[in-house]
Amino acid sequence: MGRVVELVCSTCKRSYSPKEVQYTCPNCGTLKGTLEVIYDYEEIKSNWKRLNPNEGPHSHWRYLPLLPVKGENLPPLRIGWTPLLRAISLERELNIKIYVKDEGANPSGSLKDRASSVAIVDAIEKRKDTIAAASTGNAASSLSAIAASMGLRSIIFVPKGAPKAKVTQLLVYGAIVFEVQGTYDDAFDLSLELSLKKGIYSRNTAFNPYLGEGKKTASLEIAEQLGWKVPDYLIVPVGDGCIIQGLWKGFKDLYRIGFIDSLPKMIGVQAEGSSPLAQAFFSGKEEAVATKVDTIADSIKVAIPRDQVKALKAVRESGGTFVTVTDTEILNAIPYLARKTGIFGEPAGVTPLAGLLKLKEESEIEENSTVVLVMTGNGLKDIESALKSVDSEPLKVKGIEDVERFLTN
Amino acid sequence: MGRVVELVCSTCKRSYSPKEVQYTCPNCGTLKGTLEVIYDYEEIKSNWKRLNPNEGPHSHWRYLPLLPVKGENLPPLRIGWTPLLRAISLERELNIKIYVKDEGANPSGSLKDRASSVAIVDAIEKRKDTIAAASTGNAASSLSAIAASMGLRSIIFVPKGAPKAKVTQLLVYGAIVFEVQGTYDDAFDLSLELSLKKGIYSRNTAFNPYLGEGKKTASLEIAEQLGWKVPDYLIVPVGDGCIIQGLWKGFKDLYRIGFIDSLPKMIGVQAEGSSPLAQAFFSGKEEAVATKVDTIADSIKVAIPRDQVKALKAVRESGGTFVTVTDTEILNAIPYLARKTGIFGEPAGVTPLAGLLKLKEESEIEENSTVVLVMTGNGLKDIESALKSVDSEPLKVKGIEDVERFLTN
Repeated sequence: MGRVVELVCSTCKRSYSPKEVQYTCPNCGTLKGTLEVIYDYEEIKSNWKRLNPNEGPHSHWRYLPLLPVKGENLPPLRIGWTPLLRAISLERELNIKIYVKDEGANPSGSLKDRASSVAIVDAIEKRKDTIAAASTGNAASSLSAIAASMGLRSIIFVPKGAPKAKVTQLLVYGAIVFEVQGTYDDAFDLSLELSLKKGIYSRNTAFNPYLGEGKKTASLEIAEQLGWKVPDYLIVPVGDGCIIQGLWKGFKDLYRIGFIDSLPKMIGVQAEGSSPLAQAFFSGKEEAVATKVDTIADSIKVAIPRDQVKALKAVRESGGTFVTVTDTEILNAIPYLARKTGIFGEPAGVTPLAGLLKLKEESEIEENSTVVLVMTGNGLKDIESALKSVDSEPLKVKGIEDVERFLTN
Repeated sequence: MGRVVELVCSTCKRSYSPKEVQYTCPNCGTLKGTLEVIYDYEEIKSNWKRLNPNEGPHSHWRYLPLLPVKGENLPPLRIGWTPLLRAISLERELNIKIYVKDEGANPSGSLKDRASSVAIVDAIEKRKDTIAAASTGNAASSLSAIAASMGLRSIIFVPKGAPKAKVTQLLVYGAIVFEVQGTYDDAFDLSLELSLKKGIYSRNTAFNPYLGEGKKTASLEIAEQLGWKVPDYLIVPVGDGCIIQGLWKGFKDLYRIGFIDSLPKMIGVQAEGSSPLAQAFFSGKEEAVATKVDTIADSIKVAIPRDQVKALKAVRESGGTFVTVTDTEILNAIPYLARKTGIFGEPAGVTPLAGLLKLKEESEIEENSTVVLVMTGNGLKDIESALKSVDSEPLKVKGIEDVERFLTN
């Protein structure tokens, strides 16, 4: 494990010891007071060398020296070390070097498994047997899956009217599911209230600073899988902003310990109908709130981005940008990615490709750049949207003549 | 690649060279004349040693010396090298050493990716640019995904009324989908007719002898992941029978080249409403045909098992048995497996656990045996069945008092 020396408030910069504060800065509150995890980088630097890709473990636990847990008791499921695939057919069309980080290959089908697994290991090390979260989507299914594998109890708060299929998955894993008679924000607050009152470990996004530490392992893998060469751009779906800030933190940590000697530009993709962070970015504001949200990409459909301070900082510090895409562009990107790479993504997961197409059109990405698209979730998670993404129909045939007629046309 | 020296008819034992015959024995026909692939085992034995698990590639291509392809041009997707997870919580309840082979971790979410990838590489080596198959399920989505990743065209024949969600996945991957106005058997026949008439490469199950060679790599991995120790039992879902015969072939091949010194017993699990092979096995017959099939486990819902000769032989030769499970037992096994291991399986995929529970009850499995459950497909492929597998509902709450009341009860 990496020794965490301090937790620094992302707004007031006050420093806390990890024994003093567990979640957010008491002075700045849950939204502004998200904490950055700082390790003893000199110690890590002198005790840890770049790995040989052949050396195990082939999971994200290979980066334990840069994680905030001891890791003596780890989940048996294979978390991380997902494929980074070169997308040759896309490259030919776009004249850019393109890699896809296929996070759908994680056990519960999304990048969230990285965060959930770090949270669960941390909970175990803090002698907790229950872990709570508010979510309707990937974070919840991920938490309940990994908690089950470790014999922990998970409590999930979902808003009223959460999609039945997603709730079903939680029940299959044996989570206790509370349907809060209110909005997602009400569910978030109630989850926090329970955690704080009962000392139950919280996996609420952004609120728990170790979640971003789990997510950052995708960056560590990308760097290692590219032979410790840093891509020019990382294109990342953005909802709450926890993934993009975690990925940026990963590159910064690698830079601090001397494993890499440059940093990528971080590009956040939001859905046009749910783009509070893109709006804040372009108007130079520090606060991001949407009054209305509407997009098919449910995993990034967010009104109050919970990790807004760190997400905006990540994009600005890196010299990156935001881009917004329409639902039509998102839907088109599902078959486009699948046909060019064999990777089937959920709507949020394919937004990096939709964003890349837009940026390419606007000449925002130079030719011959190296770009990594972070494909955050498996397409099997949202078959309904996939249905909407194709307009072709099966061809009705009776005999070989019909088949041949179609094939020669 | 392993040098294929002959293809032997599984019924009349006639031997063919791979240049002479590509699919089935001309004398015994497509059902009885399935071919067994025989390598130059002495050559393999003298040129290949057991691998070090740290050595790559960490995909099923690590076993290229035992596969019938050259493999100079391989799919970029990560096929195989799926986790073999020890199921400690299940072990405690059942007093048996239990491992789960998690095939849902393959790119398209099922074990079929092993077969499809070998077929596609073989097609490329035979200079084919199109590959055809009849299927409504995992074989089709697997074929269309991997074909897309390699720039090949896939043609899929589905029977009338195939589930819309599954057909959608094929269209997303860009497959040409023909809906045959008839049954699955009509679709199978029409697919063969097209392949033979037009020289299009066929991926029809059992018909193409190399598919089982792809599937066998799951066995090679199981043996290697257990440190080249052979489990006492492999429990495997059985529909057409291609998986169970392929897995048996894998162990036999390892035995022939001296990598292992014993063989497991193969246990086939069928759904009670679709159990022609179990019936043939228990009545000592050589032919398996069901007049009616009905089960929730669509991946093993089969009237005419296409790989029946080899499947029956595998179970008999190994000293194994068959077991049938009801739809209720299958549905119960979905949350049971998920809650004990974190692995979410589709109905067919969890039948090995349902079968194990039944065999344990009947004292057919000795205590302290080592059992591997082959979990063939990801639960995300069939959310509808998962919905049916849980009878609990989310708990409706307004405030913290409601939550606390539920938690203390």
